This record gives sequence, C-alpha cells and structure tokens, in this order.
Amino acid sequence: MKQDWKPGTMIYPLPAVMVSCADSKGNDNIITVAWTGTVCTNPAMLYISVRPERHSYTMIKETMEFTVNLTTEDLAKATDWCGVKSGRDFDKWAECGLTRESGVTVRCPSIAESPLSIECRVTEIIPLGSHHMFIARVLNVRADKRYINPETGAFDLGAAGLINYSHGHYYRQGDEIGRFGWTVKKN
Amino acid sequence: MKQDWKPGTMIYPLPAVMVSCADSKGNDNIITVAWTGTVCTNPAMLYISVRPERHSYTMIKETMEFTVNLTTEDLAKATDWCGVKSGRDFDKWAECGLTRESGVTVRCPSIAESPLSIECRVTEIIPLGSHHMFIARVLNVRADKRYINPETGAFDLGAAGLINYSHGHYYRQGDEIGRFGWTVKKN
Repeated sequence: MKQDWKPGTMIYPLPAVMVSCADSKGNDNIITVAWTGTVCTNPAMLYISVRPERHSYTMIKETMEFTVNLTTEDLAKATDWCGVKSGRDFDKWAECGLTRESGVTVRCPSIAESPLSIECRVTEIIPLGSHHMFIARVLNVRADKRYINPETGAFDLGAAGLINYSHGHYYRQGDEIGRFGWTVKKN
Repeated sequence: MKQDWKPGTMIYPLPAVMVSCADSKGNDNIITVAWTGTVCTNPAMLYISVRPERHSYTMIKETMEFTVNLTTEDLAKATDWCGVKSGRDFDKWAECGLTRESGVTVRCPSIAESPLSIECRVTEIIPLGSHHMFIARVLNVRADKRYINPETGAFDLGAAGLINYSHGHYYRQGDEIGRFGWTVKKN
C-alpha cells in the first residue's frame, strides 16, 4: 500500500563525494556533493549539481575543472563538515586535516586521503533551478595503491570502506550480496 | 600513494534502481539502471542514462515518461536479472514475480514491491556517447506505508534495506554513521 507525496528528491542511497576545485589564481576549496553520478560509460562522463551561491560554484565555472574524491568511514566527519561549512570562512583542508595532492591532468588539487580521485573537465553547464548541473569528461583516475591486490593487480574498492548517503543519514557499506550478472551465470 | 589509470566510470557506491516504462500502446518493461541520481532539489529533478539500443530506450523516448523504483535486499535478484535480460525476450514482471501498480501522474506502471516509486516526465534528452541522458522532473512520489512511522508520520527509508552498487558488486546497507550536519550540531 502506497501513499502519494509531493515531488521530492528521493533517489537513494547515493555517494557523498568531496569535490576539490580551484580558481584561476590557485585559491582552492572542497565541497561535499551527493547530487553526483555517472552519466556515460564511453566516453567516461559524470556530473555534479551545485547551487550557484556556493563558493565552489564560481571556481568551477571559471576553470571548468574539478576532481571528485570518493569518501570512506575515516573521512566521514570531513565529508559532513565540508558539506555544511563554506570555503569563504574556512580553509577546509587545514580544518579537516586533509592533504593536497597535485592534479595530473587538471590544475586543481585532489585529496590524498581519498581512496580514489577522478579528475574532470566540464563540457556543459545546465541551469535547472536551485542547482546547476556540471556535466564533465573524466580525464584521469587516481587510485590508492593500498587497495590494489599485488598478486592480481585488481582494485578492491569494497575494501576501502566507502560510505553512502540516504535521506539525510550517512551509512557504512554493508555485506556483499552478489556480483553483477550473478542471477544468470551458470556454475 | 596513488596510481594513475585511464579514464573510467568510478563514482561509487550508487543506487541500482528498477525503472519501469511503457510505450504509447501500453507495452511496458523494466530496466535496471545505476547511472542515475538527483540533479536538482527545487524543482525536484533526476536523470537516468540509458544505451539507445536498450528496449526501454525507445519506450521512454516515445512517451517521455518513466518511474524510478528503489530496490531492496528482497528485490536484489530481480534487480540484477532485469539489468542483464532484455524486455524483447521476456516479460520481466512475470519472470521476476513483480506486480504492476497503476501510475498516478504517468501512464506507465510502477513496481508494487518497491518501497518507493518516483514518477517522472522527461524534459530533455542529451546524447553523450554510449549512453543518452534523460533529464526529468519528478511529478509524484509513492511511498510504501510500511516504512511510515504511525506515531510521527516520518518515513524511515533506513528500515527499507536499500541496496547499493559498487564497482560490479551489490551491497547491503550498513550501520548508520551520523545524520547530515552532525559534525556542527551542538548537543
């Protein structure tokens, strides 16, 4: 039995990523974003949606670059704090004990403590209302070697302890249910 | 220490939603999508990215409507199966034991077994490459009354057992870490 509600943003669970960015003078910032996701496999493309009044919005619009940093249980406090506070008032790197790592294909830094950083170039900005969507090409992916199996070379993102965001709450990753396609694979 | 990779789709964890849709003759289908997310808070908007060769792509393009159905542990098998098989070959509702529920603001059905269904109208189709992005307005949200606290009226999505998808694997929801803003709230 279902109850009808007024329209709302109810897709969950979502990633809560820390986006690092910089303006053309090299001033940088971190903003936490849950309105993010993959929009195309080939070429690899993603989006983030940001309110125009946010400090990071102007930086990204100016340089058309940003880096998406995945977040873990160890980064949960920083993830929340960077989503609530403004870079106009704080150096979020210093306040959260986060380390800048130079970008490879972009000029903005990535977050060293993140297990995986995704360097992006904006291809389109779509104003929608409260949020504008930055659609971006993935230029480079930087993965923490700690999660690469030395024998197989496979990257184990499951071991990174990624967190997710669901309807106002952050959650730990739970147990694995199965692998994509497991319901049709023969033993 | 990080290792550089070639560009890839690495934002995780993501929701794995079952999208229900229909063509103008009333033929319907279900497609599982992880390339989905919220793109705007006000008005409430979301997207799904779908390959043009998928059976559901033509249906959605024809009617410009679809419904996003969130998925749970109980729906994990159906979620995987509907992501691998094609509606050209199977009636996915019958094969997965899923029940059609009439749409309220859209003509396509939603999935009764899903804890939350989001009825949407497409506002824009953006071809990106392997995937085309359907950007859509949320018209109506249908929530299972089982997860509404009878005393407070609050909806507890955490109790629904939502699943997430991360780098080729499905996972259960883990324990809660905190509520949005907990790092700045005073006791």
